[in-house]
Amino acid sequence: MKTIDMNCDMGESFGVYTLGTDKEILPYVSSANIACGFHAGDPSIMRKTVKLAIENGVAIGAHPGLPDLMGFGRRHIDLFPEEAYDLVAYQVGALWGIVQSEGGHLRHVKAHGMLYNRATQDPELAESIARAVYDIDPDLVLFGLAGGELLNAGKKVGLKTGSEVFADRTYQEDGTLTSRREANALIEDAGLAGEQVTRMIEEGKVHAQQGKDVDILAETVCIHGDGPHALAFAKSIREKIENAGIGIRPIG
Amino acid sequence: MKTIDMNCDMGESFGVYTLGTDKEILPYVSSANIACGFHAGDPSIMRKTVKLAIENGVAIGAHPGLPDLMGFGRRHIDLFPEEAYDLVAYQVGALWGIVQSEGGHLRHVKAHGMLYNRATQDPELAESIARAVYDIDPDLVLFGLAGGELLNAGKKVGLKTGSEVFADRTYQEDGTLTSRREANALIEDAGLAGEQVTRMIEEGKVHAQQGKDVDILAETVCIHGDGPHALAFAKSIREKIENAGIGIRPIG
Amino acid sequence: MKTIDMNCDMGESFGVYTLGTDKEILPYVSSANIACGFHAGDPSIMRKTVKLAIENGVAIGAHPGLPDLMGFGRRHIDLFPEEAYDLVAYQVGALWGIVQSEGGHLRHVKAHGMLYNRATQDPELAESIARAVYDIDPDLVLFGLAGGELLNAGKKVGLKTGSEVFADRTYQEDGTLTSRREANALIEDAGLAGEQVTRMIEEGKVHAQQGKDVDILAETVCIHGDGPHALAFAKSIREKIENAGIGIRPIG
Amino acid sequence: MKTIDMNCDMGESFGVYTLGTDKEILPYVSSANIACGFHAGDPSIMRKTVKLAIENGVAIGAHPGLPDLMGFGRRHIDLFPEEAYDLVAYQVGALWGIVQSEGGHLRHVKAHGMLYNRATQDPELAESIARAVYDIDPDLVLFGLAGGELLNAGKKVGLKTGSEVFADRTYQEDGTLTSRREANALIEDAGLAGEQVTRMIEEGKVHAQQGKDVDILAETVCIHGDGPHALAFAKSIREKIENAGIGIRPIG
Repeated sequence: MKTIDMNCDMGESFGVYTLGTDKEILPYVSSANIACGFHAGDPSIMRKTVKLAIENGVAIGAHPGLPDLMGFGRRHIDLFPEEAYDLVAYQVGALWGIVQSEGGHLRHVKAHGMLYNRATQDPELAESIARAVYDIDPDLVLFGLAGGELLNAGKKVGLKTGSEVFADRTYQEDGTLTSRREANALIEDAGLAGEQVTRMIEEGKVHAQQGKDVDILAETVCIHGDGPHALAFAKSIREKIENAGIGIRPIG
Repeated sequence: MKTIDMNCDMGESFGVYTLGTDKEILPYVSSANIACGFHAGDPSIMRKTVKLAIENGVAIGAHPGLPDLMGFGRRHIDLFPEEAYDLVAYQVGALWGIVQSEGGHLRHVKAHGMLYNRATQDPELAESIARAVYDIDPDLVLFGLAGGELLNAGKKVGLKTGSEVFADRTYQEDGTLTSRREANALIEDAGLAGEQVTRMIEEGKVHAQQGKDVDILAETVCIHGDGPHALAFAKSIREKIENAGIGIRPIG
Repeated sequence: MKTIDMNCDMGESFGVYTLGTDKEILPYVSSANIACGFHAGDPSIMRKTVKLAIENGVAIGAHPGLPDLMGFGRRHIDLFPEEAYDLVAYQVGALWGIVQSEGGHLRHVKAHGMLYNRATQDPELAESIARAVYDIDPDLVLFGLAGGELLNAGKKVGLKTGSEVFADRTYQEDGTLTSRREANALIEDAGLAGEQVTRMIEEGKVHAQQGKDVDILAETVCIHGDGPHALAFAKSIREKIENAGIGIRPIG
Repeated sequence: MKTIDMNCDMGESFGVYTLGTDKEILPYVSSANIACGFHAGDPSIMRKTVKLAIENGVAIGAHPGLPDLMGFGRRHIDLFPEEAYDLVAYQVGALWGIVQSEGGHLRHVKAHGMLYNRATQDPELAESIARAVYDIDPDLVLFGLAGGELLNAGKKVGLKTGSEVFADRTYQEDGTLTSRREANALIEDAGLAGEQVTRMIEEGKVHAQQGKDVDILAETVCIHGDGPHALAFAKSIREKIENAGIGIRPIG
């Protein structure tokens, strides 16, 4: 049986501020990427989220971001590769501390926002991140955009990797995501999103905006946890995947 | 041979700001308490400090503090015990991430500033801290003021503990430190400080301000890393201890 | 005609995080207390909120808090009076910068959360805050709990003050609010809340939990902007006040 | 008599961390650019620095930076122009609050670090900053690199501007500074630095690295307040300027 991982960013609340629908969406995913306090999250939110993930039998991952709570880690900050290494080691360790104290197990790492985007294109940044993850624990799985530099870097340093695809984003013929600035960047119909992702898993192909099929490796699907339709979307995609006879489970 | 640990707070620089004389003082201590980014320190400073500690063969400890960089963790912040637990788990984990990635080993935990002071007197706070440390790694050694609640809590939860004494502070007849607001709180003569600490190690006694001897357990001596005379003081105290035939090594 | 001010805390969102219902509640109040970036708010949120207040013809006030975004300014932090002075001057100035650049006018200052609570009881802290406000602009109005030290301090330094009452909190016979830890601290019936506040305005009296009437000066009523019933409550209280023939307008 | 302003960045300490030699260097400059809490500085440091500036009769300016204490405002952060506007309005206002409460007068604004560097080259960012300054107080003087976009933007929005030159940096034939990555970026001889700056003031010319003279407008000279030779350098340059019969005073 083919299998796929479904991952979702979580623990992105902070103090009194609430973001996302962690509790509701957890039953529909197999991996939780938990924010580590730099772009979102705080120690108490992290604990609550780790507990929820354990209760739901969902694999726990660290979701390190740029040190910019005000910008939610989405604004580019010019870092030296060593700074990126240090930020990742710090945040992965911080979540490890929480996970360890809850008797859980840290399974993967997925960089957040602009750190993820830049590392997708920048081999040096990608390698800093991959090396930090490897140096902390070589058994961790590194997530990265399908076809991007994070996966290359992960393999290079010796990590197991998770090639990530999006159900609700359209693709270009070079295998990259259509920029969010473009009109047709998003797939808002849950049925079409489910079809796209099922085909990526089964056939390893996605239909690009330019009209032809592109090869793509789908090992983990990113599910969005916020927005008004997040939950309905997650349910629908999961159903589609299960109906296709594909197993849903964490990588590694 | 009697032995004693000598510890010093380190890694308390931040960004472009420099504090302390880590590099110079490391050869004179056996344990480094490394700040974890809340009251001081940042991921890159933490790495530099961990590297220095490893190079000097000094035991590495986490030095978690209150989330108050502006106040250097010295201002009381009213926390729920669970918040303290979470802050400690986060910070110890963060340093663990850095230590792990450098191939080092995390040996102990010493709370910083007001977190340490309050936990010395507050059994509930002390237990939160001790439990967080135990739940992360039951082999970690928990430092606490000789005679204080942190040691009680550490023992209660099953941790090895390090009873901390001060060479350069005077003591009250109830075994507590003389408040810094008192005129005679500090011992500024390195020779007298060395004598006090040597006697604490050898005889388990300290001469209190009220004129009589008090029992005290000395397992680790706190050495201050800042101030103009820090280095001379550290050297002098180490010499005194070595001349008394006492071995200097980490606990545990 | 008797008049009263109705105030509400606003601009307490941060970055991507949203809190409160500023836009909806603005039509029902006459004064907006805008967070200044320490316990909540950021420069862009501040600007949006100032614009909204100006559009709604609502008086603008600074709402300075303790430097603790994670704790939303609700955790006590032990400050020296000079530190409180500096924090208030900084935050009031910051909001002034935004207000000035929008062509608005800064009318009042209301401390937030634990800074407000402590200053209500601590004359020295209250005077630090009052003096900071006066030294920036002696025409600003200082809000404080009816009967509390902030009002005393404001008068002492020469400021106009706003004696604040709560529609939805019960009172003790010494004129203080019933602690939120008590079962009957809150008035959840909007009708009763409206009656309490109308009577405070018209008669200067409130019925205390112990059964007798207490004198109270109502110059501004605090309206809560969050919680599921905030808007309905605000509407209802405003109606009650207007039906009693009381004018609603800012102080000073 | 020709005159020139001499400015220096100040108040860049934070909490327990000390940076610079504000007290020593103040007697040698006519303008102090005071950090506003984002890249450096905190409310209490700001007050101390404002007091020192007033005592020394030195003009007070705001020195707003990017929100990045860990990177000291030197790392590029990708901001929307409106975010830059808001950050500047907030920080200038915050310093205004402190200055106002000390009975002083805010005279100028100089952006810090990467905010200054980027605005020197980016007309849109420069205009956001200039407009924020103008909208707060049209009498403020906006400092910017000689020949750069900040000066253009300042003039465009109607501000008085201060064209800034460096005594200790070499210039390119297009009037820009030699990059710090180049070997000959710095003039380390105080005598040569003094000659360069005196000639810029008297003749409006600087000798570029490529060998020919370039026109340059010198209205304010940047003096560095940190580094081991800062004080000696400041003294020497001031002497050179005074010996040339040039008056030293703030702009505007």
